[in-house]
Amino acid sequence: MKVLVINAGSSSCKYQLLEMDTQSVLCSGLAERIGQTSGRLTHKIAPDTDKESKLVREAAFPTHVEAMELVIALLTDPEVGVIKDKGEIFAIGHRVLHGGESITDPVLVDSHVKDIIKDCFLLGPLHNPANLMGIEVAEKLFPGVPNVAVFDTEFGMGMPPEAYMYALPYELYEELKIRRYGFHGTSHKYIARKTAEYLGKPLNELRSITMHLGNGSSMSCVRDGKCFDTSMGLTPLEGLIMGTRCGSIDPAIVPFVMEKKSLSPAEADTLMNKKSGLLGLCGYTDMRDVHAQVEKGDKRAALALQMLVRSIKKTLGSYIFLLDGKVDALVFTAGIGENDDIVRAAVCDGLESFGIKLDLKENGTRKPGARTISLPDGKIPVLIIPTNEELQIALATLEVLGK
Amino acid sequence: MKVLVINAGSSSCKYQLLEMDTQSVLCSGLAERIGQTSGRLTHKIAPDTDKESKLVREAAFPTHVEAMELVIALLTDPEVGVIKDKGEIFAIGHRVLHGGESITDPVLVDSHVKDIIKDCFLLGPLHNPANLMGIEVAEKLFPGVPNVAVFDTEFGMGMPPEAYMYALPYELYEELKIRRYGFHGTSHKYIARKTAEYLGKPLNELRSITMHLGNGSSMSCVRDGKCFDTSMGLTPLEGLIMGTRCGSIDPAIVPFVMEKKSLSPAEADTLMNKKSGLLGLCGYTDMRDVHAQVEKGDKRAALALQMLVRSIKKTLGSYIFLLDGKVDALVFTAGIGENDDIVRAAVCDGLESFGIKLDLKENGTRKPGARTISLPDGKIPVLIIPTNEELQIALATLEVLGK
Repeated sequence: MKVLVINAGSSSCKYQLLEMDTQSVLCSGLAERIGQTSGRLTHKIAPDTDKESKLVREAAFPTHVEAMELVIALLTDPEVGVIKDKGEIFAIGHRVLHGGESITDPVLVDSHVKDIIKDCFLLGPLHNPANLMGIEVAEKLFPGVPNVAVFDTEFGMGMPPEAYMYALPYELYEELKIRRYGFHGTSHKYIARKTAEYLGKPLNELRSITMHLGNGSSMSCVRDGKCFDTSMGLTPLEGLIMGTRCGSIDPAIVPFVMEKKSLSPAEADTLMNKKSGLLGLCGYTDMRDVHAQVEKGDKRAALALQMLVRSIKKTLGSYIFLLDGKVDALVFTAGIGENDDIVRAAVCDGLESFGIKLDLKENGTRKPGARTISLPDGKIPVLIIPTNEELQIALATLEVLGK
Repeated sequence: MKVLVINAGSSSCKYQLLEMDTQSVLCSGLAERIGQTSGRLTHKIAPDTDKESKLVREAAFPTHVEAMELVIALLTDPEVGVIKDKGEIFAIGHRVLHGGESITDPVLVDSHVKDIIKDCFLLGPLHNPANLMGIEVAEKLFPGVPNVAVFDTEFGMGMPPEAYMYALPYELYEELKIRRYGFHGTSHKYIARKTAEYLGKPLNELRSITMHLGNGSSMSCVRDGKCFDTSMGLTPLEGLIMGTRCGSIDPAIVPFVMEKKSLSPAEADTLMNKKSGLLGLCGYTDMRDVHAQVEKGDKRAALALQMLVRSIKKTLGSYIFLLDGKVDALVFTAGIGENDDIVRAAVCDGLESFGIKLDLKENGTRKPGARTISLPDGKIPVLIIPTNEELQIALATLEVLGK
């Protein structure tokens, strides 16, 4: 049974075709520069296996429709295709950023669901319009195939009010739905389930902390298998320092900078989302570049690394306190979490008295799959569990369809 | 040796006259509604002693000069005065909010210092102009008496760069001096010294966490007697939930609300500083009112209390992690910290596994002075130490003058 997963951006579209009987990826790809004069499609067959092969096609994609038509042509190509006919695709799962307070769980798309996704344009102005476009393109090109929307806010919607409310005038919550939603929900949910499986513990008894550290980073505090707190908020800006995002700062800085630099609200938003974080501090967004600069003696890169680690460590402490110290595991995931042993070691450094004892040799070794990187005598196991948002979306899609 | 301490606001002026030989308060008071058609002066003689007496005078104070002239008249009044002549005042200590990066330590006021206080109007637009006015009034009314400025940013200026920098474009720090300064510095410094004294430990070896919880609230993490982190930032808005301030929120909420509600930067700042916090959540700013409402079953008041406690607990966890768990004491101070046993108990609840074990009976008993409120078998002592910012300013004033 094959499921196509689509993550549509404003000028890009990521996709993955999964064979759910084996939970394997048949192919994955990315269409870029949609709407521009020249676009590019990168298509990988059997990605991350010995048989991986890659195709790159340059072409103009006036809209997402043309990009997706090329994807279908490649999927069903007599030579490189992985299916004979697009009719083999059983269902399509869509990543949708924001469901507001109206929709939490994955849902079969109908006109009512599309209206709600539209209602949430305000809350997800960059992503929701693109996500809806992805759904409409799929409806057009795959008539009769069910579309399921999986919301990135899903996991965070499990939080209690004392975690999701802000101490702002209560009317702002009632009128504008200003609250903490949390993001990376698909990843946090997937990792919570995988952590429970790894520990051999029922999910509804799990108490853990997930550090999803990538270009965008967030942490979640899991109690009884549900989200008890998370670092991203109304938008994916809050919380940790990220590649280009500032994370949490004194909110009074916003009007201060706007006045001093004559910025509009939209410009202030862009400053904090696109020009800050590691980039703003040292000029690099990718942790591999930051580490390379630190090696060369770049002081600002060293500061950026130190600040990133500090923001993770502080959040870790706050979540362990929220859990009263009763924690089954700490889990690193996503690009930095899975691959950056320097960041992992720095986060755990000095925390031995809390029962957090990293096995530095295991931490420094690269291996695939879920594994423990702490010493056996540490009270709280530290794990690496690779995230897989596409698989989680595909699984949720089948679940909605009763499969 | 008598020192007058002045804390001048834009339309108010607080003062205290201290006899430094005994570190006792001769009198204290507050002039209000300066610049309005009718003002009021509340003057207490021997405050907080058995001999306390209070005078209230209604009068118009066109400027701070007239208010301070009435204060001098009362101080030297043949019947109720505590000194014969204003010449008995050896020095005047002024609370000044912001010294920017130029001045950290308490300093004898001269024209250069006044220029720097002016330069910091940008960073402390409400307080610094009033603080400067207080100094100029004192210069006029007490010719020849030295004025010392004590900055509320003093303690926070001891932080390392990884604590004081924000992950914003580096130029904003260079051009506009946007960084974390921290506030309540006089209180945090005083409490650090008192904590070291109480524990019989050299200040430069102290590792502690101070919870200054009042109408404005902040926490500081002390390592080697110095500020290692603090919750307030560029302004006193960041960090904990306060009476009318929202504390830390997703900074993207600011441009979002500004656009949706057509607010100017100044209006957004006012919303976050004056209409948020406990007031925004439940309509009350004073914790005693909040508790009374909770008793009556008010759900929003209960939410506000829960959120306040959660924000303190999360910050506590983050600081204990920054200190690698090696903490000599947790200290509650200021209005809520010294008097609200419900908040103290809720903050410490569930933290037994970290060695934080409150003695609920001792916590529930009101007593003056510094004391321990944790059980003897708790690894980390929990203390109440009453703060005294005026005394700290007076002590700093004498120190600057070599006395």
